[in-house]
Amino acid sequence: MSKQATLDFWFEFASSYSYLSVMRIEALAARAGVTVRWRPFLLGPVFLSLGWNDSPFNIYPPKGRYMWRDLERLCARYGLPLRKPSVFPRNGLLAARVALLGQDKAWIAEFAKAVMSGNFAEDRDISDSAVIGEILTRLGLPADDLLAQAGSAGNKAALHGQTDEAGELGLFGAPTFVVGKELFWGNDRLEMALEWAAGHA
Amino acid sequence: MSKQATLDFWFEFASSYSYLSVMRIEALAARAGVTVRWRPFLLGPVFLSLGWNDSPFNIYPPKGRYMWRDLERLCARYGLPLRKPSVFPRNGLLAARVALLGQDKAWIAEFAKAVMSGNFAEDRDISDSAVIGEILTRLGLPADDLLAQAGSAGNKAALHGQTDEAGELGLFGAPTFVVGKELFWGNDRLEMALEWAAGHA
Repeated sequence: MSKQATLDFWFEFASSYSYLSVMRIEALAARAGVTVRWRPFLLGPVFLSLGWNDSPFNIYPPKGRYMWRDLERLCARYGLPLRKPSVFPRNGLLAARVALLGQDKAWIAEFAKAVMSGNFAEDRDISDSAVIGEILTRLGLPADDLLAQAGSAGNKAALHGQTDEAGELGLFGAPTFVVGKELFWGNDRLEMALEWAAGHA
Repeated sequence: MSKQATLDFWFEFASSYSYLSVMRIEALAARAGVTVRWRPFLLGPVFLSLGWNDSPFNIYPPKGRYMWRDLERLCARYGLPLRKPSVFPRNGLLAARVALLGQDKAWIAEFAKAVMSGNFAEDRDISDSAVIGEILTRLGLPADDLLAQAGSAGNKAALHGQTDEAGELGLFGAPTFVVGKELFWGNDRLEMALEWAAGHA
């Protein structure tokens, strides 16, 4: 008997291509018979270790111009809404701290999709605790409790630890899909990563 | 009546993902009914304008490690041979100068495929005029004449001009497919670019 196929989905709330994968992964994983382990992390420290103190899409203007047009075309293709965020990259720290609390709970997918929609479809400030609290409440979750837990010293340290783990795994961008020792970088690799997970379970 | 669908294919002989597209584009373009205009250029000056004096795959080791594994998986998927070049990136200048002479001639595809196979499947030094000459001869072309023309002042200047044009178009990597004002970056976008060209002719 083969064991259950799983895939680790590393994402960052500020990341434009993570938006696409957060919105797409559930349906595709269900069809492929693959269980997704959601793994929020912070791109900032990973980028710093590569010498970037901002998004490469800001540091390298031609890459940035291309990315926004590419994102627009891909959103049209996937039927996803897009409103270019008035601030990029937005600070995803608070959202990541909350997501960490729920990463192995049933609500993670709905929470992640709501935050991503806030950032990339509604141009909302996802670093604002009122915005995150409103999303939690809308999902029927105890917003005040979760925001308090999110800001606890233990949870802050756990997110740093998870971000360190991302670096140790060799991640250099988001989204990244990890299946065993195989990395698949970018929304473009989501289908291939799921296929790999299903085929190597 | 719609006009003939065309796509400009910008590639660099040193580029690993350009290898994949050079080997794949003819069959896919024929199926899509799209005419390909082959456009060799030099990534070096483009990278320099972004502040990189080497391949980003060398400057950023995690990106480099990932790229070689990704390339291996993609070659397996496409049924393409791969032998990691002992020198990376190889100097593609001579090959690009020769390719420029033939970019609108019938032999460009066969020449580009032979050079790419030399670099990425046979670990040959494509900067060596003996290697390029041997490829030209094998294709039934006048190797000595073409190598002499390739090194002429006019042809050298023309390749610089074509590389400047790449920068003006907003290119920042290779391969890049250009359809009208739309850029599609990376081997991953080949199919989408062909679809776009066919749909917007």
